[in-house]
Amino acid sequence: MALRIDVLTLFPRMLDGFLAESILGRAVQAGLIEVGVNDLRQWCTDKHRTADDRPFGGGAGMVLKPEPAIAAIEAIQTPGCRRIYLTPDGEPFSESIARELSTEQHLVLLSGHYEGIDQRIREEVIDREISIGDYVLTNGTLPAAVLIDAVARFIPGVLGEEKSLTHESFTGKLLDFPQYTRPAEFRGKSVPEVLLSGNHGEIEKWRLAQRIEKTRQVRPDLFKHYRHESHH
Amino acid sequence: MALRIDVLTLFPRMLDGFLAESILGRAVQAGLIEVGVNDLRQWCTDKHRTADDRPFGGGAGMVLKPEPAIAAIEAIQTPGCRRIYLTPDGEPFSESIARELSTEQHLVLLSGHYEGIDQRIREEVIDREISIGDYVLTNGTLPAAVLIDAVARFIPGVLGEEKSLTHESFTGKLLDFPQYTRPAEFRGKSVPEVLLSGNHGEIEKWRLAQRIEKTRQVRPDLFKHYRHESHH
Repeated sequence: MALRIDVLTLFPRMLDGFLAESILGRAVQAGLIEVGVNDLRQWCTDKHRTADDRPFGGGAGMVLKPEPAIAAIEAIQTPGCRRIYLTPDGEPFSESIARELSTEQHLVLLSGHYEGIDQRIREEVIDREISIGDYVLTNGTLPAAVLIDAVARFIPGVLGEEKSLTHESFTGKLLDFPQYTRPAEFRGKSVPEVLLSGNHGEIEKWRLAQRIEKTRQVRPDLFKHYRHESHH
Repeated sequence: MALRIDVLTLFPRMLDGFLAESILGRAVQAGLIEVGVNDLRQWCTDKHRTADDRPFGGGAGMVLKPEPAIAAIEAIQTPGCRRIYLTPDGEPFSESIARELSTEQHLVLLSGHYEGIDQRIREEVIDREISIGDYVLTNGTLPAAVLIDAVARFIPGVLGEEKSLTHESFTGKLLDFPQYTRPAEFRGKSVPEVLLSGNHGEIEKWRLAQRIEKTRQVRPDLFKHYRHESHH
Protein backbone atom coordinates (compact mmCIF):
# COMPACT_ATOMS: atom_id res chain seq x y z
CA MET A 1 0.00 0.00 0.00
CA ALA A 2 1.36 3.38 -0.98
CA LEU A 3 2.42 5.79 1.75
CA ARG A 4 -0.31 8.35 2.38
CA ILE A 5 0.69 11.82 3.57
CA ASP A 6 -1.91 14.35 4.72
CA VAL A 7 -0.84 17.95 5.06
CA LEU A 8 -2.95 20.24 7.23
CA THR A 9 -2.32 23.87 6.38
CA LEU A 10 -3.86 27.34 6.19
CA PHE A 11 -2.27 27.76 2.75
CA PRO A 12 -3.19 24.68 0.71
CA ARG A 13 -2.46 26.36 -2.63
CA MET A 14 1.20 26.81 -1.68
CA LEU A 15 1.73 23.13 -2.55
CA ASP A 16 0.07 23.15 -5.98
CA GLY A 17 3.22 23.51 -8.05
CA PHE A 18 5.29 21.26 -5.83
CA LEU A 19 2.82 18.37 -6.06
CA ALA A 20 2.44 18.61 -9.83
CA GLU A 21 6.06 18.93 -10.95
CA SER A 22 9.34 17.11 -10.97
CA ILE A 23 10.00 13.74 -9.41
CA LEU A 24 7.34 14.13 -6.75
CA GLY A 25 4.67 14.95 -9.32
CA ARG A 26 5.57 11.79 -11.22
CA ALA A 27 5.53 9.70 -8.02
CA VAL A 28 2.05 10.98 -7.17
CA GLN A 29 0.80 10.25 -10.69
CA ALA A 30 2.31 6.77 -10.58
CA GLY A 31 0.53 6.06 -7.29
CA LEU A 32 3.82 5.50 -5.43
CA ILE A 33 2.82 8.08 -2.86
CA GLU A 34 -0.50 9.69 -2.07
CA VAL A 35 -0.61 13.29 -0.83
CA GLY A 36 -3.72 14.96 0.54
CA VAL A 37 -3.78 18.69 1.21
CA ASN A 38 -6.31 19.70 3.85
CA ASP A 39 -7.37 23.28 4.43
CA LEU A 40 -7.32 23.92 8.18
CA ARG A 41 -10.00 26.54 7.73
CA GLN A 42 -12.56 23.79 7.08
CA TRP A 43 -12.39 23.09 10.83
CA CYS A 44 -12.73 26.72 11.90
CA THR A 45 -16.35 26.69 12.98
CA ASP A 46 -16.96 30.25 14.21
CA LYS A 47 -18.57 32.65 11.78
CA HIS A 48 -15.29 34.43 10.96
CA ARG A 49 -13.41 31.15 10.43
CA THR A 50 -10.78 32.25 12.92
CA ALA A 51 -7.71 30.02 13.02
CA ASP A 52 -5.51 32.06 15.35
CA ASP A 53 -5.64 34.48 18.25
CA ARG A 54 -3.29 36.64 20.33
CA PRO A 55 -0.98 34.88 22.80
CA PHE A 56 -1.75 34.78 26.51
CA GLY A 57 0.96 36.61 28.42
CA GLY A 58 1.56 39.08 25.59
CA GLY A 59 3.97 39.19 22.70
CA ALA A 60 3.74 39.76 18.97
CA GLY A 61 2.51 37.28 16.40
CA MET A 62 -0.61 35.19 16.32
CA VAL A 63 -0.96 31.73 17.80
CA LEU A 64 -2.91 28.88 16.19
CA LYS A 65 -6.01 28.15 18.27
CA PRO A 66 -6.42 24.67 19.76
CA GLU A 67 -9.94 23.72 18.64
CA PRO A 68 -9.66 23.74 14.81
CA ALA A 69 -6.25 22.06 14.60
CA ILE A 70 -7.17 19.36 17.12
CA ALA A 71 -10.54 18.70 15.45
CA ALA A 72 -8.84 18.51 12.06
CA ILE A 73 -6.16 16.05 13.12
CA GLU A 74 -8.71 13.90 14.90
CA ALA A 75 -10.73 13.81 11.68
CA ILE A 76 -7.74 12.99 9.45
CA GLN A 77 -5.76 10.56 11.61
CA THR A 78 -5.91 6.78 11.16
CA PRO A 79 -4.85 4.06 13.60
CA GLY A 80 -1.06 3.85 13.72
CA CYS A 81 -0.46 7.03 11.76
CA ARG A 82 2.34 9.39 12.76
CA ARG A 83 1.26 12.95 13.51
CA ILE A 84 4.09 15.40 12.92
CA TYR A 85 4.29 19.11 13.64
CA LEU A 86 6.81 21.09 11.60
CA THR A 87 8.41 23.62 13.92
CA PRO A 88 11.79 25.33 14.28
CA ASP A 89 12.04 23.96 17.82
CA GLY A 90 11.61 20.31 16.82
CA GLU A 91 14.29 17.66 16.40
CA PRO A 92 16.51 18.31 13.37
CA PHE A 93 15.30 16.54 10.22
CA SER A 94 17.84 14.17 8.69
CA GLU A 95 18.26 11.42 6.12
CA SER A 96 17.74 8.80 8.80
CA ILE A 97 14.41 10.34 9.86
CA ALA A 98 13.38 10.53 6.19
CA ARG A 99 14.22 6.87 5.69
CA GLU A 100 12.34 5.90 8.84
CA LEU A 101 9.21 7.87 7.87
CA SER A 102 9.23 6.36 4.37
CA THR A 103 8.31 2.99 5.90
CA GLU A 104 5.16 4.32 7.62
CA GLN A 105 1.70 3.91 6.13
CA HIS A 106 0.21 7.28 6.99
CA LEU A 107 1.77 10.58 8.01
CA VAL A 108 -0.21 13.63 9.10
CA LEU A 109 1.81 16.85 8.82
CA LEU A 110 0.61 19.92 10.68
CA SER A 111 1.88 23.10 9.04
CA GLY A 112 1.04 25.74 11.58
CA HIS A 113 2.13 29.28 12.12
CA TYR A 114 5.85 28.90 12.38
CA GLU A 115 5.80 31.50 15.15
CA GLY A 116 3.82 29.24 17.39
CA ILE A 117 0.72 27.20 17.94
CA ASP A 118 -1.20 26.59 21.13
CA GLN A 119 0.83 24.19 23.27
CA ARG A 120 -2.22 22.00 23.87
CA ILE A 121 -2.29 21.04 20.18
CA ARG A 122 1.23 19.67 20.60
CA GLU A 123 0.27 17.79 23.73
CA GLU A 124 -3.01 16.35 22.44
CA VAL A 125 -2.49 15.32 18.84
CA ILE A 126 1.21 15.48 17.93
CA ASP A 127 3.54 12.46 18.11
CA ARG A 128 6.70 14.08 16.85
CA GLU A 129 8.06 17.59 16.26
CA ILE A 130 10.51 18.09 13.43
CA SER A 131 12.59 21.08 12.33
CA ILE A 132 14.01 21.34 8.82
CA GLY A 133 16.69 23.80 9.97
CA ASP A 134 17.69 26.62 12.28
CA TYR A 135 15.76 29.43 10.64
CA VAL A 136 12.24 30.80 10.82
CA LEU A 137 9.75 30.71 7.95
CA THR A 138 6.36 32.35 7.53
CA ASN A 139 4.56 29.06 8.06
CA GLY A 140 5.14 25.31 8.10
CA THR A 141 3.94 24.51 4.59
CA LEU A 142 7.32 24.69 2.86
CA PRO A 143 8.85 22.54 5.63
CA ALA A 144 6.09 19.99 5.00
CA ALA A 145 7.00 19.97 1.31
CA VAL A 146 10.68 19.52 2.16
CA LEU A 147 9.85 16.57 4.41
CA ILE A 148 7.64 14.97 1.75
CA ASP A 149 10.32 15.37 -0.92
CA ALA A 150 13.08 13.84 1.24
CA VAL A 151 10.84 10.97 2.37
CA ALA A 152 9.63 10.24 -1.17
CA ARG A 153 13.20 9.63 -2.33
CA PHE A 154 13.32 6.55 -0.10
CA ILE A 155 10.18 4.99 -1.55
CA PRO A 156 11.09 2.24 -4.04
CA GLY A 157 10.42 3.35 -7.61
CA VAL A 158 10.30 7.08 -6.95
CA LEU A 159 13.83 7.72 -8.14
CA GLY A 160 14.35 6.44 -11.66
CA GLU A 161 17.66 4.84 -10.79
CA GLU A 162 17.58 3.08 -7.44
CA LYS A 163 21.30 3.49 -7.15
CA SER A 164 21.21 7.26 -7.05
CA LEU A 165 20.48 7.07 -3.34
CA THR A 166 24.04 5.94 -2.78
CA HIS A 167 27.17 8.07 -3.06
CA GLU A 168 25.55 11.24 -1.92
CA SER A 169 26.01 13.81 0.73
CA PHE A 170 25.33 12.28 4.15
CA THR A 171 25.83 8.71 3.08
CA GLY A 172 28.52 7.99 5.63
CA LYS A 173 28.13 11.50 7.10
CA LEU A 174 30.61 13.04 4.69
CA LEU A 175 29.80 15.69 2.13
CA ASP A 176 29.77 14.71 -1.52
CA PHE A 177 32.72 14.69 -3.93
CA PRO A 178 32.90 17.12 -6.89
CA GLN A 179 30.99 15.97 -9.94
CA TYR A 180 32.00 16.48 -13.57
CA THR A 181 30.28 15.71 -16.83
CA ARG A 182 30.95 16.49 -20.47
CA PRO A 183 32.62 18.42 -21.99
CA ALA A 184 35.98 17.20 -20.67
CA GLU A 185 37.32 20.70 -21.16
CA PHE A 186 35.30 23.89 -20.77
CA ARG A 187 36.80 27.39 -20.84
CA GLY A 188 40.22 25.94 -20.22
CA LYS A 189 39.05 24.01 -17.17
CA SER A 190 39.59 20.28 -17.48
CA VAL A 191 37.99 17.41 -15.67
CA PRO A 192 40.50 15.90 -13.18
CA GLU A 193 42.51 13.26 -15.04
CA VAL A 194 41.78 10.50 -12.58
CA LEU A 195 38.08 10.60 -13.52
CA LEU A 196 38.97 9.84 -17.15
CA SER A 197 41.41 7.05 -16.21
CA GLY A 198 38.92 4.21 -15.96
CA ASN A 199 40.79 3.06 -12.83
CA HIS A 200 37.93 2.56 -10.41
CA GLY A 201 40.15 2.03 -7.39
CA GLU A 202 41.93 5.34 -7.99
CA ILE A 203 38.62 7.09 -8.66
CA GLU A 204 37.16 5.86 -5.37
CA LYS A 205 40.30 6.91 -3.52
CA TRP A 206 40.22 10.39 -5.08
CA ARG A 207 36.54 10.83 -4.34
CA LEU A 208 36.89 9.81 -0.70
CA ALA A 209 39.83 12.21 -0.26
CA GLN A 210 37.74 15.00 -1.80
CA ARG A 211 34.82 14.23 0.50
CA ILE A 212 37.01 14.32 3.59
CA GLU A 213 38.64 17.58 2.50
CA LYS A 214 35.31 19.27 1.67
CA THR A 215 33.80 18.14 4.97
CA ARG A 216 36.83 19.43 6.85
CA GLN A 217 36.50 22.84 5.19
CA VAL A 218 32.73 23.35 5.22
CA ARG A 219 31.30 21.13 7.96
CA PRO A 220 33.92 20.07 10.48
CA ASP A 221 31.00 19.42 12.87
CA LEU A 222 30.08 16.34 10.82
CA PHE A 223 33.32 14.57 11.71
CA LYS A 224 32.05 13.72 15.13
CA HIS A 225 29.56 11.42 13.38
CA TYR A 226 32.01 10.02 10.89
CA ARG A 227 33.01 6.39 10.95
CA HIS A 228 35.11 4.96 8.17
CA GLU A 229 32.98 3.63 5.34
CA SER A 230 34.43 0.16 5.62
CA HIS A 231 32.79 -0.23 9.02
CA HIS A 232 29.31 0.00 7.48
CA MET B 1 14.82 49.58 -4.23
CA ALA B 2 13.16 46.25 -3.57
CA LEU B 3 15.31 43.15 -3.28
CA ARG B 4 15.27 41.20 -6.52
CA ILE B 5 15.68 37.42 -6.40
CA ASP B 6 16.14 35.36 -9.53
CA VAL B 7 15.71 31.61 -9.30
CA LEU B 8 17.24 29.45 -12.00
CA THR B 9 15.61 26.02 -12.12
CA LEU B 10 14.59 23.11 -14.31
CA PHE B 11 11.20 23.08 -12.57
CA PRO B 12 9.89 26.65 -12.68
CA ARG B 13 6.27 25.60 -12.05
CA MET B 14 7.22 24.16 -8.66
CA LEU B 15 7.21 27.71 -7.28
CA ASP B 16 3.82 28.80 -8.64
CA GLY B 17 1.81 28.19 -5.48
CA PHE B 18 4.53 29.40 -3.18
CA LEU B 19 4.88 32.75 -4.95
CA ALA B 20 1.14 33.41 -5.08
CA GLU B 21 0.10 32.52 -1.52
CA SER B 22 0.60 33.52 2.06
CA ILE B 23 2.87 36.26 3.31
CA LEU B 24 5.29 35.91 0.42
CA GLY B 25 2.52 36.28 -2.15
CA ARG B 26 1.41 39.49 -0.46
CA ALA B 27 4.99 40.81 -0.30
CA VAL B 28 5.43 40.19 -4.03
CA GLN B 29 2.14 41.91 -4.83
CA ALA B 30 3.06 44.88 -2.63
CA GLY B 31 6.38 45.24 -4.46
CA LEU B 32 8.41 44.64 -1.29
CA ILE B 33 10.30 41.86 -3.01
CA GLU B 34 10.63 40.90 -6.66
CA VAL B 35 11.03 37.24 -7.62
CA GLY B 36 11.89 36.06 -11.11
CA VAL B 37 11.70 32.39 -12.01
CA ASN B 38 13.97 31.44 -14.90
CA ASP B 39 13.70 28.14 -16.74
CA LEU B 40 17.21 26.73 -17.12
CA ARG B 41 16.10 24.91 -20.26
CA GLN B 42 16.01 28.25 -22.11
CA TRP B 43 19.80 28.06 -22.09
CA CYS B 44 20.05 24.47 -23.29
CA THR B 45 20.98 25.07 -26.86
CA ASP B 46 21.36 21.60 -28.32
CA LYS B 47 18.42 20.16 -30.21
CA HIS B 48 17.32 17.90 -27.33
CA ARG B 49 17.59 20.72 -24.76
CA THR B 50 19.86 18.57 -22.63
CA ALA B 51 20.53 19.97 -19.17
CA ASP B 52 22.41 17.04 -17.66
CA ASP B 53 24.71 14.16 -18.51
CA ARG B 54 26.32 11.15 -16.84
CA PRO B 55 29.19 11.77 -14.41
CA PHE B 56 32.81 11.25 -15.45
CA GLY B 57 34.33 8.49 -13.34
CA GLY B 58 31.06 6.61 -13.04
CA GLY B 59 28.28 6.60 -10.51
CA ALA B 60 24.51 6.89 -10.54
CA GLY B 61 22.54 10.05 -11.04
CA MET B 62 22.82 12.77 -13.62
CA VAL B 63 25.04 15.84 -13.34
CA LEU B 64 24.04 19.31 -14.50
CA LYS B 65 26.11 20.29 -17.53
CA PRO B 66 28.35 23.35 -17.31
CA GLU B 67 27.36 25.29 -20.45
CA PRO B 68 23.64 26.02 -19.88
CA ALA B 69 23.92 26.91 -16.19
CA ILE B 70 26.95 29.14 -16.72
CA ALA B 71 25.37 30.87 -19.72
CA ALA B 72 22.14 31.39 -17.75
CA ILE B 73 23.82 32.91 -14.71
CA GLU B 74 25.96 35.15 -16.88
CA ALA B 75 22.78 36.37 -18.56
CA ILE B 76 20.87 36.94 -15.31
CA GLN B 77 23.57 38.36 -13.04
CA THR B 78 23.98 42.08 -12.35
CA PRO B 79 27.01 43.92 -10.93
CA GLY B 80 27.29 43.25 -7.20
CA CYS B 81 24.68 40.51 -7.15
CA ARG B 82 25.22 37.43 -4.98
CA ARG B 83 25.11 34.10 -6.85
CA ILE B 84 24.08 31.26 -4.57
CA TYR B 85 23.94 27.54 -5.22
CA LEU B 86 21.59 25.52 -3.02
CA THR B 87 23.34 22.27 -2.17
CA PRO B 88 23.42 19.82 0.72
CA ASP B 89 27.18 20.32 0.97
CA GLY B 90 27.00 24.10 1.41
CA GLU B 91 27.26 26.11 4.63
CA PRO B 92 24.22 25.64 6.87
CA PHE B 93 21.52 28.24 6.33
CA SER B 94 20.63 30.27 9.42
CA GLU B 95 18.76 33.33 10.61
CA SER B 96 21.95 35.37 10.45
CA ILE B 97 22.53 34.44 6.80
CA ALA B 98 18.88 35.25 6.05
CA ARG B 99 19.23 38.68 7.68
CA GLU B 100 22.47 39.34 5.81
CA LEU B 101 20.99 38.37 2.42
CA SER B 102 17.92 40.54 3.03
CA THR B 103 20.15 43.62 2.72
CA GLU B 104 21.43 42.69 -0.75
CA GLN B 105 19.98 44.18 -3.92
CA HIS B 106 20.02 41.12 -6.14
CA LEU B 107 20.32 37.41 -5.42
CA VAL B 108 20.63 34.72 -8.08
CA LEU B 109 19.69 31.27 -6.77
CA LEU B 110 20.78 28.23 -8.74
CA SER B 111 18.50 25.26 -8.06
CA GLY B 112 20.36 22.41 -9.62
CA HIS B 113 20.14 18.68 -9.36
CA TYR B 114 20.57 18.16 -5.66
CA GLU B 115 22.71 15.11 -6.49
CA GLY B 116 25.31 17.22 -8.12
CA ILE B 117 26.23 19.75 -10.75
CA ASP B 118 29.40 20.07 -12.74
CA GLN B 119 32.08 21.46 -10.42
CA ARG B 120 33.07 24.07 -12.97
CA ILE B 121 29.69 25.80 -12.55
CA ARG B 122 30.50 26.23 -8.88
CA GLU B 123 33.96 27.58 -9.66
CA GLU B 124 32.92 29.95 -12.46
CA VAL B 125 29.65 31.57 -11.44
CA ILE B 126 28.85 30.79 -7.79
CA ASP B 127 29.76 33.09 -4.89
CA ARG B 128 28.27 31.12 -2.05
CA GLU B 129 26.96 27.60 -1.42
CA ILE B 130 24.16 27.19 1.09
CA SER B 131 22.48 24.10 2.56
CA ILE B 132 19.05 24.28 4.17
CA GLY B 133 19.70 21.09 6.16
CA ASP B 134 21.36 17.69 6.37
CA TYR B 135 19.06 15.80 4.03
CA VAL B 136 18.84 15.24 0.28
CA LEU B 137 15.98 16.51 -1.91
CA THR B 138 15.10 15.78 -5.52
CA ASN B 139 16.30 19.21 -6.63
CA GLY B 140 17.19 22.63 -5.26
CA THR B 141 13.91 24.40 -6.00
CA LEU B 142 12.28 23.84 -2.60
CA PRO B 143 15.50 24.95 -0.88
CA ALA B 144 15.39 28.14 -2.98
CA ALA B 145 11.81 28.73 -1.78
CA VAL B 146 12.87 28.15 1.83
CA LEU B 147 15.69 30.67 1.47
CA ILE B 148 13.39 33.25 -0.13
CA ASP B 149 10.78 32.83 2.60
CA ALA B 150 13.30 33.21 5.43
CA VAL B 151 14.99 36.20 3.77
CA ALA B 152 11.67 37.92 3.03
CA ARG B 153 10.77 37.96 6.73
CA PHE B 154 13.65 40.39 7.32
CA ILE B 155 12.49 42.88 4.70
CA PRO B 156 10.71 45.81 6.37
CA GLY B 157 6.96 45.68 5.77
CA VAL B 158 6.76 42.01 4.80
CA LEU B 159 5.55 40.86 8.20
CA GLY B 160 2.44 42.74 9.25
CA GLU B 161 3.74 43.33 12.74
CA GLU B 162 7.39 44.32 12.78
CA LYS B 163 7.70 43.00 16.27
CA SER B 164 6.96 39.42 15.36
CA LEU B 165 10.59 38.97 14.40
CA THR B 166 11.50 39.15 18.06
CA HIS B 167 10.82 36.49 20.71
CA GLU B 168 11.19 33.58 18.38
CA SER B 169 13.22 30.48 18.06
CA PHE B 170 16.88 31.36 17.48
CA THR B 171 16.62 34.87 18.81
CA GLY B 172 19.38 34.42 21.36
CA LYS B 173 20.01 30.85 20.14
CA LEU B 174 17.38 29.33 22.39
CA LEU B 175 14.27 27.53 21.24
CA ASP B 176 10.94 29.23 21.72
CA PHE B 177 8.69 29.10 24.79
CA PRO B 178 5.28 27.37 24.68
CA GLN B 179 2.49 29.54 23.32
CA TYR B 180 -1.12 29.61 24.48
CA THR B 181 -4.17 31.41 23.20
CA ARG B 182 -7.90 31.27 23.99
CA PRO B 183 -9.74 29.40 25.33
CA ALA B 184 -8.05 29.53 28.75
CA GLU B 185 -9.31 26.02 29.36
CA PHE B 186 -9.69 23.35 26.69
CA ARG B 187 -10.50 19.70 27.42
CA GLY B 188 -9.44 20.18 31.01
CA LYS B 189 -6.09 21.63 30.02
CA SER B 190 -5.55 25.13 31.36
CA VAL B 191 -3.19 27.83 30.27
CA PRO B 192 -0.35 28.18 32.85
CA GLU B 193 -1.50 30.64 35.50
CA VAL B 194 1.50 32.91 35.18
CA LEU B 195 0.44 33.84 31.65
CA LEU B 196 -2.89 35.13 32.94
CA SER B 197 -1.28 37.02 35.82
CA GLY B 198 -0.49 40.23 34.00
CA ASN B 199 2.86 40.26 35.80
CA HIS B 200 5.26 40.85 32.93
CA GLY B 201 8.39 40.24 34.97
CA GLU B 202 7.12 36.84 36.05
CA ILE B 203 5.98 36.02 32.51
CA GLU B 204 9.41 36.83 31.09
CA LYS B 205 11.08 34.75 33.78
CA TRP B 206 8.80 31.77 33.11
CA ARG B 207 9.28 32.01 29.35
CA LEU B 208 13.07 32.15 29.62
CA ALA B 209 13.05 29.11 31.93
CA GLN B 210 10.86 27.24 29.44
CA ARG B 211 13.17 28.14 26.57
CA ILE B 212 16.22 26.92 28.44
CA GLU B 213 14.50 23.67 29.43
CA LYS B 214 13.19 22.98 25.90
CA THR B 215 16.62 23.71 24.40
CA ARG B 216 18.27 21.42 26.93
CA GLN B 217 15.89 18.60 26.03
CA VAL B 218 15.68 18.94 22.24
CA ARG B 219 18.79 20.80 21.10
CA PRO B 220 21.58 20.69 23.67
CA ASP B 221 23.95 21.44 20.78
CA LEU B 222 22.62 25.02 20.70
CA PHE B 223 23.99 25.79 24.17
CA LYS B 224 27.47 26.15 22.82
CA HIS B 225 26.20 29.27 21.03
CA TYR B 226 24.17 30.57 23.92
CA ARG B 227 25.07 33.78 25.66
CA HIS B 228 22.77 35.24 28.25
CA GLU B 229 20.24 37.60 26.72
CA SER B 230 21.35 40.53 28.85
CA HIS B 231 24.69 40.54 27.01
CA HIS B 232 23.01 41.41 23.70
